[in-house]
Amino acid sequence: MTLDAALKDYVHKNQETFLKDIARLSAQPSVSATHDGVEECALLVKKMIEEIGGTAKILRLDGAAPLVYGEVLRPGSDRTVLFYNHYDVQPVEPLELWKSPPFKPEIRDGRMYGRGVSDDKGQLVSRLKLIESYIKVDGTPPCNVKFCFEGEEEVGSPHLDKYVAKNEGLFKSDVVVWEYGNVDAKGRPVVGLGVKGMIYLELVVKTLNRDAHSMNAAALPNPVWRLVRLLSLIKDEKGHIKIPGWYDHIIGLSSDEIKVLREEPFDAEGLLATYAAKEFIGGMSAEEAKLALVAGPTANIAGIWAGYMGPGSKTVLPAEVHCKMDFRLVPGQVPDELFDSFTGYLASNGFSDVKIEKMTMEPAARTSYTSPWAQATVHAAREIFGVKPVIELSSAGTGPLYVFSRRYGADAVDIGFAPHDDAIHAPNENIRVDYLEKGMLWIGEAIEEYLAGARPKG
Amino acid sequence: MTLDAALKDYVHKNQETFLKDIARLSAQPSVSATHDGVEECALLVKKMIEEIGGTAKILRLDGAAPLVYGEVLRPGSDRTVLFYNHYDVQPVEPLELWKSPPFKPEIRDGRMYGRGVSDDKGQLVSRLKLIESYIKVDGTPPCNVKFCFEGEEEVGSPHLDKYVAKNEGLFKSDVVVWEYGNVDAKGRPVVGLGVKGMIYLELVVKTLNRDAHSMNAAALPNPVWRLVRLLSLIKDEKGHIKIPGWYDHIIGLSSDEIKVLREEPFDAEGLLATYAAKEFIGGMSAEEAKLALVAGPTANIAGIWAGYMGPGSKTVLPAEVHCKMDFRLVPGQVPDELFDSFTGYLASNGFSDVKIEKMTMEPAARTSYTSPWAQATVHAAREIFGVKPVIELSSAGTGPLYVFSRRYGADAVDIGFAPHDDAIHAPNENIRVDYLEKGMLWIGEAIEEYLAGARPKG
Repeated sequence: MTLDAALKDYVHKNQETFLKDIARLSAQPSVSATHDGVEECALLVKKMIEEIGGTAKILRLDGAAPLVYGEVLRPGSDRTVLFYNHYDVQPVEPLELWKSPPFKPEIRDGRMYGRGVSDDKGQLVSRLKLIESYIKVDGTPPCNVKFCFEGEEEVGSPHLDKYVAKNEGLFKSDVVVWEYGNVDAKGRPVVGLGVKGMIYLELVVKTLNRDAHSMNAAALPNPVWRLVRLLSLIKDEKGHIKIPGWYDHIIGLSSDEIKVLREEPFDAEGLLATYAAKEFIGGMSAEEAKLALVAGPTANIAGIWAGYMGPGSKTVLPAEVHCKMDFRLVPGQVPDELFDSFTGYLASNGFSDVKIEKMTMEPAARTSYTSPWAQATVHAAREIFGVKPVIELSSAGTGPLYVFSRRYGADAVDIGFAPHDDAIHAPNENIRVDYLEKGMLWIGEAIEEYLAGARPKG
Repeated sequence: MTLDAALKDYVHKNQETFLKDIARLSAQPSVSATHDGVEECALLVKKMIEEIGGTAKILRLDGAAPLVYGEVLRPGSDRTVLFYNHYDVQPVEPLELWKSPPFKPEIRDGRMYGRGVSDDKGQLVSRLKLIESYIKVDGTPPCNVKFCFEGEEEVGSPHLDKYVAKNEGLFKSDVVVWEYGNVDAKGRPVVGLGVKGMIYLELVVKTLNRDAHSMNAAALPNPVWRLVRLLSLIKDEKGHIKIPGWYDHIIGLSSDEIKVLREEPFDAEGLLATYAAKEFIGGMSAEEAKLALVAGPTANIAGIWAGYMGPGSKTVLPAEVHCKMDFRLVPGQVPDELFDSFTGYLASNGFSDVKIEKMTMEPAARTSYTSPWAQATVHAAREIFGVKPVIELSSAGTGPLYVFSRRYGADAVDIGFAPHDDAIHAPNENIRVDYLEKGMLWIGEAIEEYLAGARPKG
């Protein structure tokens, strides 16, 4: 253990205050999909950085949500850790399934419920409060600290790379503490080393200029039938994506990584039971599902709508149909190349009239398991939680990890305190209040172990 | 011309009074979708039958809107004509598009505007007032008259067949004057001889018990992909329905009917232009489209919805998807048999878990063009309007014509006075006031020609 007792004591004694700060930030709506409250939330985040003793500024780009940048320097330090988090949240619908209002965080039975308490405002506040604790106890953080708090993660971080490019050098760091991180069902901390990339699209098929009485279905084309044919070109029953070249440049797992993957737990039965699913796609085995979640690309239909969606019957021939799709990508897949292949494939099958709106284009990124920063976080997890951590070579989810790794070579690791059943992106999102303290100490311990192992620069 | 001069004179002189009665009935809301005013309207309709000298009663069934039955007998007559109409109307939304309040009928520039003035209260009143005219002039109608005025046509007549079955014999007649009937853009009366049937279903495919983060799409099954595969089994690109036996028992058009169809006008360009459609399904020709509208079965997707349908992107793996479908049927197709074939087909393709809710099951019905009643209406149209009428062998739409034809062999014909641009089911529904007189005389002339041609029974 590298952390000193005074720091641990301070973190322990102030848990209630820290939780109030999580509730305070989570009470401010900031739904990036609808822009609701985003501006107000950015101002609050800036204020909270200043409250812990940091300097902060709001960066802006045309058409983008504001990005809040903050820093706290340690005199004489030649090492910098960057905390990447996001202050925006997912939409709250369906509202009727929430047991308490999503923007009025409330603690019940050891958990705090509210939109964003886990993803990602709780994590964001845990970082701020860790640095505040260092300042209160030692007068300074253990090294230079930078905060990069963006407001568009939940809509695919469309401007993060541009913000970083425009402010050359501002976000440079040695290592990055990524935005999320969780503790599994058995209480083991999870070290996240990568994320998948994503292409998010909205397809619109339109065959008429307005809805028609469905008696006209004998002669007039229905856009939904057309979309059904289009979608049937994308994926086969086993889940294999049929778009040409989709798998051509994938960088698979190394033999070391495959070894780690084999050793890591995967609760296949638990995953199926959580959603009452009968089986994995196409009857795949638990081992296949585990590999697919870590290293497999996906083609998902996230939304579809057309025509009459109310109770009872209405005989309508819809004029158009909308379909939202997300494709998760793995290292080696280049979003622009895949998008071009997709549109070319549609055109060659007679679908060049279909409108395709590009909403997200992000490559995947993966930090090496053997890097010093990954090893420091793994060791710190053992120290703080007293158990062997779970190594997640890559999340099945997506994030803009590539922005910092590609430009500055800064390794990023996902560490945090979210419970495995935190229901992010869903009603009744929550955190366990008893995990916050360990989550904060884990980050502190990881940074100190990294700093202790790192030789001076130059 | 068979009508006597005194009757024609009476009908002519009382047009203003008749229009007032249309306005009076249309001023009473009776929206079956919301039940608004339905009960009050049934009472008013009963009163209006009594006012012309008929007897009337209100029939009731659990959960059904009241059905108003009326009759006026002609002493010694062995022939009966039944008038089928409905006193319920479509909802009025969007209200802001009406130029005058939908339930305050008003005459402007030769048209009366209001919800129901054409569909179907104007038609209903035109029948009542024709019979009133006969009673005033001759003391009796030309034969026995029955009125069947239901209150649920706009929601698919779910109880009409049950009403008729429960009151065995009450609705027996030789011929039926159907509820609607119009005059086309060139002033030609349209004789409607049939309607298609319909199966209306809602399909629900569910693979999870709640929505999941779409990162799980690598392993967990998406119900929309499953629905896409299901739907791709139903129809091919040319519009051919692939469900086994779907076409097996269809009674095609006779050679006489095909001849009539060839002669009838069909504004293919106009239909495409109305909806800005590029072409008919699968590039079919105008002749093929005309035939399909009159005599082709359909499989239409009237609604589909799943997952996230808002602006921007949300990465969700939906738990379930809903799909509303209407299948239009033609004579010979038996709804129950087709439904069984459909569910069997789905089961044999591995879709027995899909939930299917049956919402409408109505067979088609078509009156033979060469039947005495059809011929009488065609000839009467020439007499009254002075032009060759348009023959519509079947509407592309659906209605409960089968209820009377199947049980009593009563041929039904759609004749009336609606202008082609009457905007039924839409804002600013209207009738042309100058069409009312001819519409009434057409019905009288048709009945008298039919009676003159019909030999005494027994």
